[in-house]
Parts: sequence; C-alpha cells; structure tokens
Amino acid sequence: MTAYDDLMAHARETEALAQVAGRLGWDQETVMPRGAAAQRGEESAAMEGVLHARRTDPRIGEWLEAAEATDKVAAANLREIRRAFERSNKVPAKLAAEIARVTSVAQGIWAQARADEDVAAFLPTLQRVVALRQEEGQALAQGGDVYDALLDDYEPGAKASELDAMFGALRPRLVALRAAILDRPQPTPLSGSFDEAAQLALSRELAGVFGYDFARGRIDKAVHPFCSGSGNDVRVTTRTDPADPFNCLYSTIHEVGHASYEQNVEPDYLLTPIGRGVSMGVHESQSRIYENQLARSPAFAEWLLGRMRDVFGDIGIDDPATFARAVNRVSNGYIRTEADEVQYNLHVMMRYDLERALMSGDLAVDDLEAAWNDRFAADFGFAVDKPSNGCLQDVHWSVGLMGYFPTYSLGNVYAGCLHAALRADRPGLDAELAQGDLSGATAWLRDKVQRHGALMDPRETIRAACGFEPSEAPLLDYLEAKFAALYDL
Amino acid sequence: MTAYDDLMAHARETEALAQVAGRLGWDQETVMPRGAAAQRGEESAAMEGVLHARRTDPRIGEWLEAAEATDKVAAANLREIRRAFERSNKVPAKLAAEIARVTSVAQGIWAQARADEDVAAFLPTLQRVVALRQEEGQALAQGGDVYDALLDDYEPGAKASELDAMFGALRPRLVALRAAILDRPQPTPLSGSFDEAAQLALSRELAGVFGYDFARGRIDKAVHPFCSGSGNDVRVTTRTDPADPFNCLYSTIHEVGHASYEQNVEPDYLLTPIGRGVSMGVHESQSRIYENQLARSPAFAEWLLGRMRDVFGDIGIDDPATFARAVNRVSNGYIRTEADEVQYNLHVMMRYDLERALMSGDLAVDDLEAAWNDRFAADFGFAVDKPSNGCLQDVHWSVGLMGYFPTYSLGNVYAGCLHAALRADRPGLDAELAQGDLSGATAWLRDKVQRHGALMDPRETIRAACGFEPSEAPLLDYLEAKFAALYDL
Repeated sequence: MTAYDDLMAHARETEALAQVAGRLGWDQETVMPRGAAAQRGEESAAMEGVLHARRTDPRIGEWLEAAEATDKVAAANLREIRRAFERSNKVPAKLAAEIARVTSVAQGIWAQARADEDVAAFLPTLQRVVALRQEEGQALAQGGDVYDALLDDYEPGAKASELDAMFGALRPRLVALRAAILDRPQPTPLSGSFDEAAQLALSRELAGVFGYDFARGRIDKAVHPFCSGSGNDVRVTTRTDPADPFNCLYSTIHEVGHASYEQNVEPDYLLTPIGRGVSMGVHESQSRIYENQLARSPAFAEWLLGRMRDVFGDIGIDDPATFARAVNRVSNGYIRTEADEVQYNLHVMMRYDLERALMSGDLAVDDLEAAWNDRFAADFGFAVDKPSNGCLQDVHWSVGLMGYFPTYSLGNVYAGCLHAALRADRPGLDAELAQGDLSGATAWLRDKVQRHGALMDPRETIRAACGFEPSEAPLLDYLEAKFAALYDL
Repeated sequence: MTAYDDLMAHARETEALAQVAGRLGWDQETVMPRGAAAQRGEESAAMEGVLHARRTDPRIGEWLEAAEATDKVAAANLREIRRAFERSNKVPAKLAAEIARVTSVAQGIWAQARADEDVAAFLPTLQRVVALRQEEGQALAQGGDVYDALLDDYEPGAKASELDAMFGALRPRLVALRAAILDRPQPTPLSGSFDEAAQLALSRELAGVFGYDFARGRIDKAVHPFCSGSGNDVRVTTRTDPADPFNCLYSTIHEVGHASYEQNVEPDYLLTPIGRGVSMGVHESQSRIYENQLARSPAFAEWLLGRMRDVFGDIGIDDPATFARAVNRVSNGYIRTEADEVQYNLHVMMRYDLERALMSGDLAVDDLEAAWNDRFAADFGFAVDKPSNGCLQDVHWSVGLMGYFPTYSLGNVYAGCLHAALRADRPGLDAELAQGDLSGATAWLRDKVQRHGALMDPRETIRAACGFEPSEAPLLDYLEAKFAALYDL
C-alpha cells in the first residue's frame, strides 16, 4: 500500500459514510415520522461528528505529504482531499459543532417565523447564524476575504470580484429585456383539470425522457423538490400544484438535471472524492440547461403540448406558439424559485449584495427587512407585501448558506455557455427536441460534463466542455433571441 | 463529568449511530433502488466499521473501571456497556469483518439456492459461515460452552441446558394436542375477494387499535414483515396475499408487538444502552402475545369478524365460532413462519437441535439436508417435498444467526406467562377484546414490560411483570384450554 492507496481507502470509507448521512436527509424530507425529529437531530449530529473526525484525522496530513499523483485522476483526488482536510482543520471543532447545532434549530425557527409573517421572531437567530458564519469565514480566510472564503465551499476557486463582474454584465441587458417583454400582452394561461396522479405519472415519463435511471434512483413527493445522493443511489423529489402542472413537470426536469450529473459520473470514480459534481455552479448548470434551454425550448414545448393534451385532455391551449409562450411566461412576482428565466438572476443578485453586506457588517441584521424591501422595490418596481414574499422566503440564510446564492447565477451563465456549444455541435437539435428525443443532448452533456465529476475545477470543467472561455454573453444572447421570437419584440 | 457521564455520552452517540445503521437496513428492504445494492454494501460496511471501532474504544475500558453506579438505571447501563465491550474485544476485528463480509454475500447465495431448489449450491457457503461462527463462538466462550456463547448474543444469560428442559416440557403436550386437533374436521376457510388496498387499510386500523403510534413510526410493504428502529422512529413492514387476508393482518399485529416494545420504552432511556428491548425472547413475547393470546382470542376474533365483513363484504363465514376456528386453524405444513400456535414450537425445537449439532461438529454441513428431512418426517409425520419447504426455508443460518431460533420459543413461553398474569389482573379482558378495545391490555404490557427496556435482565423482566417464576406451564395450559374449546376436544 502506498500513501496514496491508504489515503484513497480512507477517503472511500468517508465518502460511503457521507452518502449515509445524505440519505438521512432524504429520509427526513420524505418518509420520516414527524415525531422522530428530535431523535433524528441526535442521529445526524452523531454522523456529522464521525465525518468531522474522519476529515480531520491527522493521518491524512501524513499521507498527503507522502502521496504522489501518478496521473490526472490521482492529482484531482489529492486536490479534493487536501482542500477538505485544510478546510476542516482551519475551523475549530467547537465552532463547527456550534454551527451545526444552531443552524439545525434555526431552520425550524425560520419556518415558523415565515408561517407567522414575523421577521422579528427570526432576527435573533439570524444574528447568531451570521455571527457564527463570520467567525468561520475569518477562520477560513486567514486574513483574506471572508466572503470569498465562504463562497469557496460552494464554488471552489470563485471570487466575489468575478461575481461582481458577472452580475454587472447580466443586469442591464436582463432589465432591458424584462421591460420589453412586460410591455407585451401576458400569454394565455393553461386551464383545465390537472389530476395529481396524472401529473406525477407524466413527470416520471419526462424524467425517463431526460435520461434519469430509475434502477439507480427513485422519485418521491416532498414539500420541496431536491436531489440527494451520488453514484448508484440518486433520489429526486417533486411536488404537485393542482392548478399548475408546470410546477411538477419542470421541477422534476430540473432535479433530473442534478441527478444526471451524479448518476453519470464515471463508475470508476464512485465513492472517491471526485465521484460527484464539482461545484454548486456546475451542478446548477446541468439542472438549468435541462429545465430551461432544453425543456423550455419552443421545439420541446411543441412535443410536450401533445403529451399534456394526451394526459390531461383540454388544457385551454392547442397551438404550439401559444403554448411556448405559456411555458416561458414572464410576469411580476415576489418569489425567486418561481421566477422566470429573465428575472431569476435579478433575484439572485439582490440576495448576493445583501448577504455580502451582512457578512461584512455593512448591513446590520436588524436592518435586513428594510434593506430587502427597498432593494426589491428598486429592482422590481413594486413593493413587497409580506415577509414570506420578502426576506423570509428563502431557507438559505437560516441554515448558514451564505455564499451559496451566487452559484445559482453562475450555473445559469454556465448553462448558457454549454447550450451554445451544444447547438454548435448538434445543428439538428431542434428537430430532435420536437420529437421528445433528448438522447443526443443528454449524451452530449454526459460526455462533456457529467462523467468527469470533480476531475477538473469548476471553470475548467465548463471551459473544456465548451471549447471557449465561459462568459455571460451566450446566456444573454440566448435569452434575447428566444424572447424576441416568442414575444415578437 | 464523571467517568459514568463520559461513558454515557459516548454510548449515546454510539446508539444514535446504531439507529442510523439500522435505518439503512429498513431503506434497503423498502425503498432502495435495485441498482444501489453494491454501493449500499460499501455504505453498510463503513457504518459497521465505525460502530465496531466505537464499541472497542479502549477509553470504554478505562471509564468502566472508574465508573460507579449510583442507582438501578446506571447499574443496568453499565451492565449493558460492559457486556458489549467485552464481547467486542473477545472477537478479533479481522474475524468480525470476515463474518460481516461472508454473511452479507451468503444471504444472496441462499436466496438463489432456495429459488433454484438447489441445496448443494448453498452448502459451501454454509460451511464457511458455520466455521466462522464456530471460531467466533470459541473466542466468545473462552473455554466454556460454544453454543451458550452464541445464544448470549440474542438472549443474555440463557443456557442451552435450560432450553433443553424447556423444549422437553413443551414437546409431549404439544404433540398430543396436535394429534387431538388434527383428528377433528378442518375449519371452514375464508372465501371472497380481498382487495390489497383494503387489506392494508384494515391492517393500519388494527395497528392503531393495538396502540402503534403512527407519529413515531410508519408502515410500508416489503417482501418480509419486520420491525426496525427504537424510540421515536420505529418502522414496521407488512405484506399482502390476495387469497389470505390473515397473512397481512396478523403479520402487522405481530410486528406492532415488537414496535410497541421499542416505542414504549421510558423516554428517559432513549438512545441509552437500556433504551431498547432487552432480548430477542422478551421481544418475541410482545409480538406473540399481541398476535396470538390477544388477536387470536375468540373474543377479539368476534370483533374482527365484524370489521372484516364491513371491509370485504361476504367472507364466506358469518358466525363467530366458525371464524374463531378459522383464525386458529391447525393443519399440516412445512413452513415455520406460517405455522399455527400449536406446531410453531415443534418447528423451532427441530432447528435448535440441528443447529446445536452443526455448531458442535456432531452434524456435518453436507449431512444437513438428510438430517432435516429425517427429523421433519419423524416430528411432523410426512415428508419434505422440496428444499424450499425444508432446510432452505429460513434465512437465519445463511446470515450466521446460530443461537437465534430458540428465542422464538422462549418468547412464546414468556407470552404464555404474561398472558396468565394479565388475565389474573384483568378479569374483564374478554369483554374488552370483544369490543376491539385493546387499551387495557396494551397499557398493562407497557407498564409491566415495555417501558423498562433493558433495565432488568430478560428473565427478571418477565418474572417482575408476572409476579411468578416463568415456566412453560401457562403457555401449555392456555393452548390446551383454548383449542379444547374451539375444537370440542
């Protein structure tokens, strides 16, 4: 056994345990009895304790010193192991445990405050979470930029300065595009009756169409759609809304994008440090290209219209152009997760600016609601009506995920790049999509992105897939062209 | 922090991790995608590694030396911790890992051999399992009786010599009772149509009637009925047979007996070493008294007849006496898990004798099938027709559970004792059962047995509940009286 072999054997067990811990999360959101919550807290904390002890095992430091990378795969595994080891060792165990403890309680307090429309009830908890994450960020940054240090957990190597530039490039063209679209008449909405079982059956069919492997996964209902697990056990959840079948169908396709990235990593990488998606941004690029560039394309919408009429009968729309506008409806709304492709990134950039100000101390937690409401009115042109439509809408800050939000926009930008490269490689894509045939597009993404897992760093993953340097231009060009055609701008 | 506090904090985390490992088993049998099996093997092995390392942590030895028991609860926790620590340290880690590895594969080989009716395909594997368990038994026995050492895992403190006496007392009266019953006409069977969803709905209703707390558990379908978990997350599985609704209903009640023991342990004991059933025998006493002495009583059967007619319509029987005989049918059969109350223990004692002979070396693995078939013909009066009805019917030996079988009969004997004590305490029990009111009986069992968890040793648990020394007599007296009345013997 070489030092590298020892390191990988240890890492493999750690990855297996991380899968177990992740599945506890799936269980909690789908099948756990409601009375089990407190006991589950102890179980999850015990698993986190085991994982933290393994990740800070001093033998890792010794093995890392002695280990040599003989190829690109080994180098990538060593990079990932070193990153996790250094990160774990920078954060005192007591602080890590306190963050785990506080955030697990904070999520419940946030949910109650949101249900009660009571921002004040959440603020003391948020104050504590912000302070703990500031402390953690300082420990991680070691004198460098605190926000960059937090961001690195979700998007290794990304810097706030790059994100500033990204949002700066996105903002004016998205604002102009929105104004042009909102100037046009709103599209015809769906009408009809959308049986829940039929929604779920169609969503499963779509999952299969987009390449989800049901032999190595399952789809269940949950309050929030999510994807959980890696390799051969990758589970998806979805939800249904009796009035809006798009909610179930497009949520499922979105999560299948995430799931495909995890299911399609090279089998040899399974349970190794590179055997999973490399970053939140690249992950989101897969879910967004599945959901938007592919499933909201007019070509695919034409096929979907036929399937929906087969399944639901009269849905109030029978021509493809009207239906394509319905799946690409742009309208005023408060909620990020329900936002259209044009406005989604405007929601994200607002959260990004606010969380940076919170973490730097420029914005006091007590002033968050006012700052949110002012910024929302300025960016969206109408006032927030209640906290659940405002600063209490997202779970992220309650669980300490400061630094996560911008990866959504990064994912959209990467999806735009991948889409441009895919179109260049497959000029007949629209003809395939119009037949409900996703096999070519998903095979391309599997080959170019998904199979590599974390072999390359995030930006290199996208650059290698596209053959060009990632930028905001392809996303913006795509959005402007698509919506100009749809809305006759 | 005293040494006792340190010990308990460590034990509590270990118990929490054991719950997680147990839930992986539930997941595997109910919801796991079929393609996840190999990955799950690695995940489970990693969890076992974590648990083994914790259970052999040398600090436990130091804490045990320094810890003092200040009350009965502390003494019981120390007893359980000491037992687990000494057991883990007697078995070399390499042997424990090899047993885990071999038995996890052996179960699949057994299942295939059973499906193929091919004993020879299973024997080399069984040979290996027997040899490994002999080696483990010798390590545990340290010069004492090997079978007693194995038995101790499932029934702490029990001895083969006591089991010999128990089976010796059961055998002649059970054989005589069976002969008398089989001399009478077979009862009228059910007929009608038994919709699966209706079976499951009624089984859930029965679970509630018997006190199962759905807020801290759930019931799912699986290939085999089982109960999994402790405390506030105790899950049950059941199965359905379109021709035989009793299969689903009585399996569910049986598992609810197990589940109630785990759900009803004192909340203060949760995630401590005494916060679970004390032994397999006491566990089985709860499942069997729920299933047999309570749910197969003529009084309860009368209520159940009404519910079944409400749910299924015409079931081919409409008078209580005929229905009571139907739920207490005694007939020739090969399969232990389908055996009636009278013959069940005859199945168990046969396995007990065979596994003792296997473990002592008196019976060679190659001779097992012949020995099984000879013994079955002698004990049951007809020949085994195929291996799946013979020596391949049970999973136990494939997974190395030698020493487990006799705890089933011990559980039946304990159920007989508890039933006698319950009847003495609640003279109006039959009137309650005839109303489908189990609240008094289940409260009695909760108070007398379940809430104590592993506070007392197994035999003391039953003795304290009954107020008399456990023996076979109450079970035999009950069976003779019940079947004499039912079959007019």
